[in-house]
This record gives sequence, C-alpha cells and structure tokens, in this order.
Amino acid sequence: MADAYSGKGTLGLIAGGGRFPFLIADGARKSGLRVVAVGFRSNTDPGLPACVDEYQELRLGQLGKLIDFFKSRGVDRVLMGGTINKARAMDIIPDFRGARLLLKLGGKGDDALLRVISDELASEGMPVRRAHELIPELLMPEGFLAGRRPSTEIMADIRFGWSVAKELGRLDIGQTVVVRRQVVAAVEALEGTDNAIRRGCSLAGQGAVVVKVFKPGQDERLDLPSVGLTTIETMRDVGAACLAVEAGRSLFFDREQALSAANRAGIAVVGVSDSLLAGD
Amino acid sequence: MADAYSGKGTLGLIAGGGRFPFLIADGARKSGLRVVAVGFRSNTDPGLPACVDEYQELRLGQLGKLIDFFKSRGVDRVLMGGTINKARAMDIIPDFRGARLLLKLGGKGDDALLRVISDELASEGMPVRRAHELIPELLMPEGFLAGRRPSTEIMADIRFGWSVAKELGRLDIGQTVVVRRQVVAAVEALEGTDNAIRRGCSLAGQGAVVVKVFKPGQDERLDLPSVGLTTIETMRDVGAACLAVEAGRSLFFDREQALSAANRAGIAVVGVSDSLLAGD
Repeated sequence: MADAYSGKGTLGLIAGGGRFPFLIADGARKSGLRVVAVGFRSNTDPGLPACVDEYQELRLGQLGKLIDFFKSRGVDRVLMGGTINKARAMDIIPDFRGARLLLKLGGKGDDALLRVISDELASEGMPVRRAHELIPELLMPEGFLAGRRPSTEIMADIRFGWSVAKELGRLDIGQTVVVRRQVVAAVEALEGTDNAIRRGCSLAGQGAVVVKVFKPGQDERLDLPSVGLTTIETMRDVGAACLAVEAGRSLFFDREQALSAANRAGIAVVGVSDSLLAGD
Repeated sequence: MADAYSGKGTLGLIAGGGRFPFLIADGARKSGLRVVAVGFRSNTDPGLPACVDEYQELRLGQLGKLIDFFKSRGVDRVLMGGTINKARAMDIIPDFRGARLLLKLGGKGDDALLRVISDELASEGMPVRRAHELIPELLMPEGFLAGRRPSTEIMADIRFGWSVAKELGRLDIGQTVVVRRQVVAAVEALEGTDNAIRRGCSLAGQGAVVVKVFKPGQDERLDLPSVGLTTIETMRDVGAACLAVEAGRSLFFDREQALSAANRAGIAVVGVSDSLLAGD
C-alpha cells in the first residue's frame, strides 16, 4: 500500500466539494508527494487552491483539458475525492474527449462514468488510486460505535435494509435506504443521502434505520459511500434511531465529533460487515 | 368475468381515499349487487356512506371487526379500492386478528400484507375480486395516448425506466421511477407518486420521463398502479416530458380530462406493453 504514495511523485487530485480533497492533499503532501489539483465551480471549496501545489478550475466534462493539465504537470497517479453536485452534473457540456467517452458510455450510472474516466487516465500513465490507502483512518470501522447496542428489532431492520440497499446498488441507483419495521420508507437516487434521510424519517416516524452500503461491482477507487457529522445531525433532527454503514468500504468523516453527537442524540452507529450480520 | 358481478349478491367494499370506491360502488349497484362498505378515518371520503347500502368506519388494522361486519351482512365477494395513507398506516393498532396476521407476516411490503388479508377473507367465504372486471373502462389502454409521439431519446428513457421500475417492484419497494437520459433521478417508496415526480423532475430538470409499472408478483386484485388528472398536473408543474404507464394492469382515472390536460401541456402519455417496447 505505502509504495503507492511514498517517495517522489506527483499526485493529480480531482477535487469535488467538501473537506475530503483537503484531507487527501494534506495526506499526500505529508507523504512527500507534489499535489496538482483540478476543481469544479460550485463544487470545489475555493480554499483548496491554497492547499495544493498547482490548481486549475474546470467545468464538468472537460476531460481532455484535465488530462492535458495533469500530463503537463508530470502527474503519475490520480485520486478522486469530494462530492459532485449531481443535479448540476446533468447539464455537463463535455469537451471533445469527454463527449467521445459519453458516447461510448451510451447513458449509464455514476459508476460506469467514473470507471471510463479512470480507464482513460490509466491509459495515459496516470492510474487512479484508492484514497483510503493514503488516509486509512477515514475508513468506517466494524462494530457498534455509538449509542445503545441495537435491539433485535433494529438489527432486523439493518439486515433488511442491507439486502435492499445492496440490490439498489447493483442497479447503480443509490447507496442509501431508510427503513422502519422492514418497510422501505425512502430510497436515495439523485437527491443525496441527507434528503433521503429527511424524507424517509418524516414518513416512517421516530425510530427509523438508515442503511448506507458500498454498491456491489462499484470500484473502491472511485466513489466510496461516506457519512459524517452532518449525517448524524440530520438524523437527530428527524428522530432516526440508527445509522448502519458498510465497514471497510465506506468513509467516516469527522469521526470523533460525529460519534459524540450520536451518543448525545441516542443514535446507534454501526459499522456493518458480513460477519457482524451473521452474528447477533 | 361477468358472472363475478352479475345477479344477486352482496359486495364487501374495502374503501380507501379518492374517487375509486365511488366508481366501484356505482358499478356494483348498476350490476344489481348490494354494497356493504368499510372505510377508514382520514382516508375514506365522508361522502361514501351515502352511496352504499351499509357502511362502517374502522381503524386500520381492525381486521377481525371487518370480517365480522362483512359476514353479518352476508358479503359473498370483496373488492378493495382507493388510496390508504401509508405514512399513517405505519401506526396501525391491530385488533387480535390483525395482530395475528402481522405476526405471521413478520414485516414485509404492501403486497404481502394485502395478500394475507385477501387469503383471510377468502377463507371466510368472501373471495377478493378484481375491481377492473367491474369497471374495465378504467384500465390503462396500450399505445400513444396524448402529446407528440416520443423521440428516440424518450423511448430509450421509457425502456430504461421500465426495467428499473420492474426491479424495484420485484423488491416490493415502489412502482414509480423518474428518469432522464437514463439516469434514475427519483425512486418512489413511501412518499407516493406525486412527491416522487416532483422531486425527480426538479433534480433532473426539464424533460424527465415518469415510468409507473405493475409490480411483478403483485396480485392484480389488490393494488394496481394508478394515475389520473393529478398526475398530469403535477408533471406539468415540474416540466416533465412523458408519462409511461403499464397498459392493461394499471388504472387511469379521469381519462378524458387527463389526456386533454396532457395535450395542452405537451406531455406524452404512453400505455406501455411488452409489444410496444419491442417495437419502435
């Protein structure tokens, strides 16, 4: 793992919104890497340029420009991190290279798009790496992390939500479901996790369970499910009982703050794995 | 078909909200049947009792009472129709017989619940019939019913949405998806079709396609997908391009008004069948 990042080299960072690109930039520079980043208007935090060695702002879809910029700066590995405003992403105006990829793609979900971009970068000598190799402390751990240990009823909702969310992930729709008493109250698609949580919990009433999973067939380098303090705050506001997130293949931001907020609000946080589901 | 309704007999009508129970009551009385109805507070229209021979209001979950009432009135066949406020339905307080069924069920989706109720009624000599046998003019016809004939792009979205909605139906989650450019913008769960349409179209932008299908494995007697004037009005308000609904196994209320509203708004309405999907 370490050899992907140690020593000399130049990391190309494709930066969406939020704090994640900062954490990547920080980790990379601590490892001795130069960091060359591209960001996107109304997605990427305007503070990022100050935290990297070089920066260029692009529009979504300017894949040709992105590749030219990275190549001209000697990028030899790439990480992607941070949120992209997907609603806006529907209005992408691709450049020639981006358009060729979209054509090849013929209209598929997020995963397919990211994978094709990743293949294109690799073919230019800039392989896409897994961000959590650089900052493994972000990975969701396994087990009961906050709140009271879930009741049998909540565990049943976690199991049920897990199987439904995995099916939805297989269809490349979304990663999150809100369930209560084994009824699916909300399914996330384009609206994002927090909106799905708000909707599902207000429909299901107090005590709902939020389950977020890694999509089967998804590429771990490209778009891991992530939760953080905001997730817990949203859940607290709408009376949710439990957050269950796939361990080992999800990112958990602001972990300490999030766990103490969860403890204060009485929200159980569970890092779910097959072995945890098999047990109990 | 006709013999299910013709001649003497007493129909037990389990009435949710909206106009559907009125249409059933009307059709049944025209066929010479007595109509004995149960309704539910904050679901069933308060005007219904005046349109049936006998009426009793129950709480959701009072299955024992429902069966006793129907049996004491000589009910020999049952229809279900109209919407149930599912959000409220999460707070059902079952009577003894209802609770026994819920226990047997162990937490499944709508279909399973309705099927178990239907089996219970049948075991008491009150088989549940298909409402559209009584009022076949409510069934969604096949073909291009309003608006311009869909473009190739819209047809591709209909095909894509159809396959996704069928998968979601198989999981017993919901019947409706909103898609644009073969991206799933919204998936319906507990919030209802109109809310899913509003959300999906506001995320996807102008030109989205709404696809509503019969759930595979669902029982045609129990809960057919339905659309009507309100569906078209909602779509008009949020700039949707096309409503595609499974033909032959969905209900289309207020058809004439809905189709002229769709024509005025430039919304294509398509009654979808396998053969229509195979063609074009």
